[in-house]
Amino acid sequence: LPFGVVRPHGDDARVVVRIEDRVLDLAAAGIAPELTARPILNALMASGRGSEVRDQAGELLNGKNFEQFLLDLDDVDVLLPVAVGDYVDFYSSIHHATNLGKIFRPEGEALLPNWRQIPVGYHGRTGTIVVSGTPITRPRGVVTDLLRGNPSCGPSETLDFELEVGFFVGGSTASHIAPDTADAHIFGAVLCNDWSARDIQRFEYQPLGPHLGKSFATTISPWVVTLDALRPYLVRPPKQDPTPASYLRARRPWALDIDLQVTLNDEEITRTNFAGMYWTFAQQLAHITVNGATTRAGDFFASGTVSGPNPGEWGSLIEASWNGTKPLMLMEDVRSFLEDGDTVTLRGWCGDGTKSRPRIGFGEATGTVVPAPEERRD
Amino acid sequence: LPFGVVRPHGDDARVVVRIEDRVLDLAAAGIAPELTARPILNALMASGRGSEVRDQAGELLNGKNFEQFLLDLDDVDVLLPVAVGDYVDFYSSIHHATNLGKIFRPEGEALLPNWRQIPVGYHGRTGTIVVSGTPITRPRGVVTDLLRGNPSCGPSETLDFELEVGFFVGGSTASHIAPDTADAHIFGAVLCNDWSARDIQRFEYQPLGPHLGKSFATTISPWVVTLDALRPYLVRPPKQDPTPASYLRARRPWALDIDLQVTLNDEEITRTNFAGMYWTFAQQLAHITVNGATTRAGDFFASGTVSGPNPGEWGSLIEASWNGTKPLMLMEDVRSFLEDGDTVTLRGWCGDGTKSRPRIGFGEATGTVVPAPEERRD
Repeated sequence: LPFGVVRPHGDDARVVVRIEDRVLDLAAAGIAPELTARPILNALMASGRGSEVRDQAGELLNGKNFEQFLLDLDDVDVLLPVAVGDYVDFYSSIHHATNLGKIFRPEGEALLPNWRQIPVGYHGRTGTIVVSGTPITRPRGVVTDLLRGNPSCGPSETLDFELEVGFFVGGSTASHIAPDTADAHIFGAVLCNDWSARDIQRFEYQPLGPHLGKSFATTISPWVVTLDALRPYLVRPPKQDPTPASYLRARRPWALDIDLQVTLNDEEITRTNFAGMYWTFAQQLAHITVNGATTRAGDFFASGTVSGPNPGEWGSLIEASWNGTKPLMLMEDVRSFLEDGDTVTLRGWCGDGTKSRPRIGFGEATGTVVPAPEERRD
Repeated sequence: LPFGVVRPHGDDARVVVRIEDRVLDLAAAGIAPELTARPILNALMASGRGSEVRDQAGELLNGKNFEQFLLDLDDVDVLLPVAVGDYVDFYSSIHHATNLGKIFRPEGEALLPNWRQIPVGYHGRTGTIVVSGTPITRPRGVVTDLLRGNPSCGPSETLDFELEVGFFVGGSTASHIAPDTADAHIFGAVLCNDWSARDIQRFEYQPLGPHLGKSFATTISPWVVTLDALRPYLVRPPKQDPTPASYLRARRPWALDIDLQVTLNDEEITRTNFAGMYWTFAQQLAHITVNGATTRAGDFFASGTVSGPNPGEWGSLIEASWNGTKPLMLMEDVRSFLEDGDTVTLRGWCGDGTKSRPRIGFGEATGTVVPAPEERRD
């Protein structure tokens, strides 16, 4: 029963839980209407009552009188569910970071000295986080002409996706969060596509990091799966060497066993699992707040690109095509980077449907690339 | 008549304009109460009616019946005036960027290849933007031990300030903003101290830029000076070489002649002017939106550290003490970086008080450093 926000046609937006192809209108059913008759999840996230509301919805659905509170997904618009406060994007797959290090610094160590010490991350743009299905306009920006080396402004020629899992903060404002208390501060998780213009990013990123190469759009799946629902899939993360600083050490297992898939125009190009991430979401939250920075309900942070050790498990085209040097062979096509009209869809799920491991679906985060606008003429 | 938000003791917060040591309660005076009887400026910013409201306040104050709508500043709490959407921090003083290049890369070119092509910037944390007067807790974080080179977690030993001017976006959501239309998208300006922990920043910033070295706190002055009020002080910026890409070119003059001062424990340590910035706020706004990223009323962007060409005009201690190698000699003290108990105050003003150049004050952005908390023990 993931949470989302929908707008029934001709009516006000409100908080719902999803059951297969329908949604339960919580406020109509009298479940916490002070939190659910809203166009956004933030109040529910801040209240700390997410589990209670989900339990009440579950009880109602185990009874008999609920049909009148269900709406078909066809009869509603599915909206961006959260007003995002701050968004931090991490870089926490050792396979992804190693691949990018090999591509960009073939002569040096693939991993920079800080990578195994701290979960490296940066702030992204919250105003361009969009819900699954929103078209993605190819960004323009200043890129380096590879032939002549001169910078010029034009549409990105190396548009890419990044397969990520993102986490929404809930509960009270907090700082100095210990990893083993992360569950008290996380509301739930979604899939996240951190669209990336590699050429824009490459020209701009020294010394202050990515900006316009990322800020044009980030797509999330609309259904927030609560951390409570994910508890059966918490597993032990890979061993960390060296042992990180004490503020990053956890006793409890905080990796998540989530199967992940990417399709490009309906063809599977990536299949991997979230459990192999080097830094866990609990460590990421501890890191965000170690300097005293406070969190707010509705803050969002994403894992960084999820890549496994082998080709076919890599969560971006820059890895899958090795920066365009080994184009990806599709059934009827070839791709180094995304072309206009391409549709990228992320999917994720936990469990195999057995009793001890019920299947939990994250739904989809999908987006189709549309052409860059013409250059502005003043 | 700058705008701000105050909470009269025992009453609700509302939008006011400031007149010397008093504020005019706009809603009480019947001026746009639908926009001004709010605890935040965002609705006024989005409405596009800032100038109209300011003019109405001016008319009232030119008449006779206004005393009953004035409140003494002593009788109100002055609040953070805006719910910030996204915050981009730039790096647009050529003197500051050159100084930092010389300090960190003494063997190479001081300016990186992208610096003269685009206004380099990155997203900062909005949830830790605080109003002038808020104590600044020294951040903890992972820093490199200079003697042994081992990373360890502790309080920053190189806490710094950065003198900046910040701009609030107003009006409708927009992208692809041309520099010469920037005034339609900017509500006003404040002073901004981008507190920085140099040791944390140095360890973390490759390859994704500053994060925890900056995210613990950013102080702004509480009074938003509208761009309309600043129009008489728009001047031509320094010549740019090379000519930037067309989306960054402006015909109108967008530099701002603002005198700026920094005091450390009431002793002036920096005196400079904002007009010398290489990249203007109009170009910065064009840059933020060139990739299609949208703005929202309440978005904020800051200039980057304002430094002039000469010592005494540098807007950070890392420059003024040349990274601690030439400690700053104060009247009764010596400083390389900030110590607990230090108070840093930014002040700014336009004009000399003559009829053609009336004085406009920005007020203060001040903060006092308090010690880092003890390490968390689980």
